[in-house]
Amino acid sequence: MANQISKQIFKTLLSFFLFVLLLSDTVSSVRKSINLKTPCKQFLLHLHNVAYDSDNTANATSATVINPLGLGSFDFGKFVIFDNPVTMDENCLSKPVARAQGFFFYNKKTTYNTWMAFSLVFNSTQHKGTMAIMDANPMVEPTRDLSIVGGTGDFIMTRGIVTLTTDLIQGNKYFRLKLDIKLYECY
Amino acid sequence: MANQISKQIFKTLLSFFLFVLLLSDTVSSVRKSINLKTPCKQFLLHLHNVAYDSDNTANATSATVINPLGLGSFDFGKFVIFDNPVTMDENCLSKPVARAQGFFFYNKKTTYNTWMAFSLVFNSTQHKGTMAIMDANPMVEPTRDLSIVGGTGDFIMTRGIVTLTTDLIQGNKYFRLKLDIKLYECY
Amino acid sequence: MANQISKQIFKTLLSFFLFVLLLSDTVSSVRKSINLKTPCKQFLLHLHNVAYDSDNTANATSATVINPLGLGSFDFGKFVIFDNPVTMDENCLSKPVARAQGFFFYNKKTTYNTWMAFSLVFNSTQHKGTMAIMDANPMVEPTRDLSIVGGTGDFIMTRGIVTLTTDLIQGNKYFRLKLDIKLYECY
Repeated sequence: MANQISKQIFKTLLSFFLFVLLLSDTVSSVRKSINLKTPCKQFLLHLHNVAYDSDNTANATSATVINPLGLGSFDFGKFVIFDNPVTMDENCLSKPVARAQGFFFYNKKTTYNTWMAFSLVFNSTQHKGTMAIMDANPMVEPTRDLSIVGGTGDFIMTRGIVTLTTDLIQGNKYFRLKLDIKLYECY
Repeated sequence: MANQISKQIFKTLLSFFLFVLLLSDTVSSVRKSINLKTPCKQFLLHLHNVAYDSDNTANATSATVINPLGLGSFDFGKFVIFDNPVTMDENCLSKPVARAQGFFFYNKKTTYNTWMAFSLVFNSTQHKGTMAIMDANPMVEPTRDLSIVGGTGDFIMTRGIVTLTTDLIQGNKYFRLKLDIKLYECY
Repeated sequence: MANQISKQIFKTLLSFFLFVLLLSDTVSSVRKSINLKTPCKQFLLHLHNVAYDSDNTANATSATVINPLGLGSFDFGKFVIFDNPVTMDENCLSKPVARAQGFFFYNKKTTYNTWMAFSLVFNSTQHKGTMAIMDANPMVEPTRDLSIVGGTGDFIMTRGIVTLTTDLIQGNKYFRLKLDIKLYECY
């Protein structure tokens, strides 16, 4: 009798075990875990912007398409479109691993401040795909966090934060940004 | 004998219980739950837009950077950049809790309709961080839902919906929007 | 005695079963499962763009608001705003199921390449709501993946990929895109 019970119990437990396993599998297929303390991917990149001055067609990587309005003294309304090389190290002549394609514009009367949206377009042997980024970029702050809102290819459906630091400014012609990319949603 | 069985069962159940607890914990670390009936955060804000008319530099919070084309009679092509104060109550003179930074443009021949993208930039003692928003804004509708696609700081990785209502229009100079923010993904 | 044990076991198992059910329910309310092999929704749409040439007001669905700068020979800086009809089949005269509202601009010196952001605005008996899309669109590639970063209404909180194919180009006046929409996050 007791033996029969234990058999029955064993069967029930087994089916439970399988059910729970199934459930656990479903859960893990939902998404790789999100943990804001440990990004699922993190890497540093460097973006190089050479402004078009009508005399540097060969080198220019960005150009102003709308000039400032004269509302305040901080370029309100200036609108820039770019296709900037992105490298692994700080050298602007290093082989780009990605292009940053998008735009920014100045939008404050009281200080230099931009809003930007762009994609990081990867096309190397290591990475193919895009990351879509948008947010305010208050350039006077030492670091600024922007939202990574999606991606394709190797970065399909990704999300996270990119922390921008202005590493170098050379007059109105060149600036270099450090991009500290932290992805919290990876597939 | 029966005692031994029940002991064995107790052990098995205990290990199951721990396993299920572990599983449940994994699940909750995946993300705070998404429930479309109950936002994880919801709040009302009021956005104030004062259009630049070349004579109100001190008050202006937005400016047209591209004029309408003349395609239809509904401002197709008009492009506006803004840095609008956002307040807790409807009074445009209240202390702003955030700035709305971004742009909108008119894009229809047959009615007033805009598409917009902007960030809510919070910088108060209560909230620091951004929310990134983009979507069509068919202004003639009494309410419009726009997508909140990401965020940083206190709103890191957030997603949800903002429902816009035009509360007040004063000629071409001033309008006030009610922003009913509903976040369904919070961290 | 054995009977009593089995009764006790039955009770315990039952409460476990209910607990696991509850858990499984919680999980499924977290989100419908994400599986990158099988989208939760997939459908084909066709987008029709008729460029404004100052003589086709009745037909035009898009218009250039910033002309190319002359940086390179690939329209760098050209900025287009659109409100394009989107149909189920390839016929541009079919009843639209959605409008594509947004913008694109050319941003490369060395080839035709655009970056775009737009919403698909559905307003049919079948679907109401929006999808927000942004990413690079390298038109010279046979297919391009863009990020779907959010949505409202029937597509609330959705995410995924849209694969664009240029199906037809007629001079500078008309082009048709195939949109293969794959949603991996549905609610």
